[in-house]
Amino acid sequence: MNNLSQESCEACRADAPQISDEELKQLIGKIPDWNIEVRDSIMQLEKTFRFGSFIKALTFSNKIGEAAETEGHHPTLLTEWGKVTVTWWSHKIKGLHRNDFIMAARTDEIFKQSHD
Amino acid sequence: MNNLSQESCEACRADAPQISDEELKQLIGKIPDWNIEVRDSIMQLEKTFRFGSFIKALTFSNKIGEAAETEGHHPTLLTEWGKVTVTWWSHKIKGLHRNDFIMAARTDEIFKQSHD
Repeated sequence: MNNLSQESCEACRADAPQISDEELKQLIGKIPDWNIEVRDSIMQLEKTFRFGSFIKALTFSNKIGEAAETEGHHPTLLTEWGKVTVTWWSHKIKGLHRNDFIMAARTDEIFKQSHD
Repeated sequence: MNNLSQESCEACRADAPQISDEELKQLIGKIPDWNIEVRDSIMQLEKTFRFGSFIKALTFSNKIGEAAETEGHHPTLLTEWGKVTVTWWSHKIKGLHRNDFIMAARTDEIFKQSHD
């Protein structure tokens, strides 16, 4: 159990601070399989999950979408035959917030549950 | 009614020919809002559809996924807050087949139906 996945997202305001370098190091250690991608100078968390069919991939996208709706924090979901690439970042602050790490950890939990 | 959307996909073999330049011109005229993108030398049909929420975007992705399953021909679906980018191409022939234009036209029909 990754405790991070059990945390709730807090409301993210436009003036909320991005995570510090120290927090980044600590939090990325809790979700070691996630990549940090930088697009248009915006740091994002990204991971690709693999499945045996298109419909299994889409089912996973729906589960992540449901979790996103619950927290009011939304990723991008690239659904392809046999894989889903999930990308989390905080639009309002144009970077990473603790919320993104919480949702990344929860994404891993949902993937694990769907394979148990 | 776009007649193209009423056609069925035919099985696409690895040795099936890509569409000719003439066919391309004729078929793209039937789906004028779609862009042709070339990625890794592969021609793809792409269009972004806009919605008022994340969940409406995801619902649309599901409808397209359902149509894809029915025809056994699958797109990539990039679901984001308020939009879905749909990309069609034929993996087996690394390019565009008539099937892709049929599915693009059908995608437009599904979008239109979900807004009627």
